[in-house]
Parts: sequence; structure tokens; C-alpha cells
Amino acid sequence: MNIPSPLSPQVLAFDVFGTVVDWHSGIAREVCALRPEVDGDAFALAWRAGYQPAMRRVMSGELGWTLIDDLHRLILDGLLAQFGLDRLSQADLGHLNKAWHRLDPWPDALAGLARLKSRYVICTLSNGNIGLLAGMAKRAGLPWDCILSAEVFRAYKPDPATYLGVARVFDVEPGRVMLVAAHQDDLAAARACGLQTAYIERPAEFGATRPKDIAPCPANTRHARDFLALADQLGC
Amino acid sequence: MNIPSPLSPQVLAFDVFGTVVDWHSGIAREVCALRPEVDGDAFALAWRAGYQPAMRRVMSGELGWTLIDDLHRLILDGLLAQFGLDRLSQADLGHLNKAWHRLDPWPDALAGLARLKSRYVICTLSNGNIGLLAGMAKRAGLPWDCILSAEVFRAYKPDPATYLGVARVFDVEPGRVMLVAAHQDDLAAARACGLQTAYIERPAEFGATRPKDIAPCPANTRHARDFLALADQLGC
Repeated sequence: MNIPSPLSPQVLAFDVFGTVVDWHSGIAREVCALRPEVDGDAFALAWRAGYQPAMRRVMSGELGWTLIDDLHRLILDGLLAQFGLDRLSQADLGHLNKAWHRLDPWPDALAGLARLKSRYVICTLSNGNIGLLAGMAKRAGLPWDCILSAEVFRAYKPDPATYLGVARVFDVEPGRVMLVAAHQDDLAAARACGLQTAYIERPAEFGATRPKDIAPCPANTRHARDFLALADQLGC
Repeated sequence: MNIPSPLSPQVLAFDVFGTVVDWHSGIAREVCALRPEVDGDAFALAWRAGYQPAMRRVMSGELGWTLIDDLHRLILDGLLAQFGLDRLSQADLGHLNKAWHRLDPWPDALAGLARLKSRYVICTLSNGNIGLLAGMAKRAGLPWDCILSAEVFRAYKPDPATYLGVARVFDVEPGRVMLVAAHQDDLAAARACGLQTAYIERPAEFGATRPKDIAPCPANTRHARDFLALADQLGC
């Protein structure tokens, strides 16, 4: 029996935080630049850990629709006392909150995206707001064809409206879109909507001293060490 | 009395059809490639003339929210008999409808946008849908930092939600956004929302034989022959 190979994707939609950019070291670096005595590693983990619960408050209806910039600030405000940041000025807090706009790409990301862009439409599919993703792209030189966000679809991943929204925007079948992400739960939700999926290993997402499980999941269409390896696999 | 000079804009938002790309010659060329006997000039003008009335049907509530790709098809279907296109195959009609994705930039557009991008955030603000604008940008090499569209705001220009939406996306005051367009009505609506405005002369928008009135309107912040002249004026 021949197993049919999947149709070639036309659109590659990328998760961003952790998949394209390194939030852990970026956030740790920025907080330590303001307050060198803070444990940057613990602070980054705590800020990021507030993200899913905050989005659940929006999706449950407890909070109205909220941009991630504003959710980040809500979470940050709840961490100030614990990390000794409560005497930062409002200007410093506003600056720190936008550290998520200033995250650096993983070392392979720019070269990998340039290769993938030569053959496919490359876009973001992130819960980050459009302004955050556009600011990050401009600073880092991320060459997106298009920035798609929860803000466009008024729903956060893993809501099916986001994955199916990418296919609708580009007027293609869901099976012609491939979600590229470093998170198996995001990929599983995309697969349930009929998308192809590519898992990217980002073992240091939570810090180099805390390696992440990067075991392959056979349900994914692709499993690649990084974007360069994905470009190899996708023939570009 | 000193007249205060306007604050420097941070975001330049560009109208697209007629301002960045030449729809008249692109549409005329594509229809004549399919049916050389058609009057491409008259066909392009007729297709474009259906655009504002079709958007009004959506904004009045007569039609539900509709992507411009679908409005273009609605208008096209109404022109087939008049232009002798009623025997085109469905595949040819689908291809022709996407001619709006394949319009060429005016000769100054790529170089001008590259210069403007070096100093400002550059984005689209078009009634075209995201997929159309992204496809056009990828084909033509338009270097947008971000593609914003009526589709993001669920309203067409001149609805204030579109102009103010750009400011909201980038978290800036409306006065820090400059709309760049070749149409005085678009600019007037943006100005009423507090945006800065730049008028671009595109005398051949309706065809080289039908020059458009390009008289300056003193209410605009800038008036420029093309994007290179705008870059000169904005110091980049």
C-alpha cells in the first residue's frame, strides 16, 4: 500500500514566542538591565507562566477582548512586589512591558525564514498583538510576508478560528497551511483543524539550564531541529 | 505668530490601489491577455467604477461583510455580457478576478518605500483583503512592515474605525500616523480623525490619456509628486 504523501503546503504559519524568538533570555536580560539584583531566570518564567491563565480569563468572558500587550502588563503588575520591582517608575514599567517587542530571534531564524520565504508564503500566527509582532519584526529583520495574529481573528490559539482563519485569509484549503511551532499542544490543535504541522526543537526555550522535552510526535508532518533543517526538508 | 510644525509621524499608512500600484494598466493588460478584442481601458474603468457602490451595499447592511476579492467577482460577473466575456471558463474568470493581486507598482514605489521604511513604520491601509495585499506584496516586492486592511477592522475606508484602527494597532496618537494616498476624499476622512495626510500625484491613475486633477489641497500635511519626493520631504 502506498501512503499518499501530503500535498505541498502553500502557506507556512509560524508560532512566534519560543518558536521564532527566545523570550526567556530576552526577558531575563531586560529585567536585569533595570534591576541587576533580580533573578532574571525566575522572573522570565513567572511572567510567561501568567500568559495562559490570563488568556483563559479573556476566552471565558471574565475579561473583554484584550491585546497581549495589556495582558502582559496585567501579569507584570501582579509580579512587582514578589520581584522587588514595585519602585520602578511608570516609564520603566511601560518600557519593560514592551520587552516582548524586543526579543531576539533564535540564531537560525533569519536565514531559515529567508530560505522558506523563497518558496512559500510565510506569516505569523501568534497570540501576540499586531503592533507587538510588527515592532519585533522591524527590529529583528524578520521577513514576514504577512503578520497574522489573534487580534485579526478576535480569538486566541488554540481556538479553531485562528488556524482556519489563516486558510481563509489566503483562500486555500486548511491542508495547504502548515503550522510551524515548538509546542505540541499548538500543533495538535492545528492538526485537528486539518492543517499540516512542523515541530521545531527549541530545547532552551525555558533557559539553557532547563532543557525541554523535544521528543518527536509521529502525528506531525515534519520534525526539524531548526528552521534551516525545515528548509532542507521542504526543498528550499 | 509661529505656526507649530506637526509632530513627526511614526507610522506611514498607505492607500494601495492607485497610490502604490497602477490598477488601470494592470487590469487592461490582463483582460486583453485573455480576450485581445476587449477594450481594456473601458473594461478597467468599468470594473473599478463598481467598487464604491459595492462597498456601499456592504456598509449599508444590504450585504454581509464581504472581502474585496468577492466584491470584485460580484462586479465582474455583472460586466461579462457587456464586454463579451461571458464565454470565459470559470478557471479563466477566477484567474482574471485575481488580476488585482498582480498589479504592478508605480515606477517610484519600491525605491520610495525602501527609503521611507528606513525611518518609519510603513503599512498598508487598504480596503483590499489581507490575502490580496499579501499576494501583491510578495509578487511585487513591496516591503511592508505590516499589512493592515479593512478586513482587520471589519469596516471599509472612509469609516473612522479604519484610520483610528491604525493608531490603535501601533499604540500611538492619531496625529502620529500619516495617511499617504492619491485620493483627496480618503485623505479628508483621515484628517477628520486627526491623522496627518500626504497627497501623492498619480496623474495617470485612470489611464495616460485621461489625466487626473492633481491640484494641491492646502489641508494636507504634505503634497508630493511621488514616493521619492515624499522621502525627500520626510528626511529619508
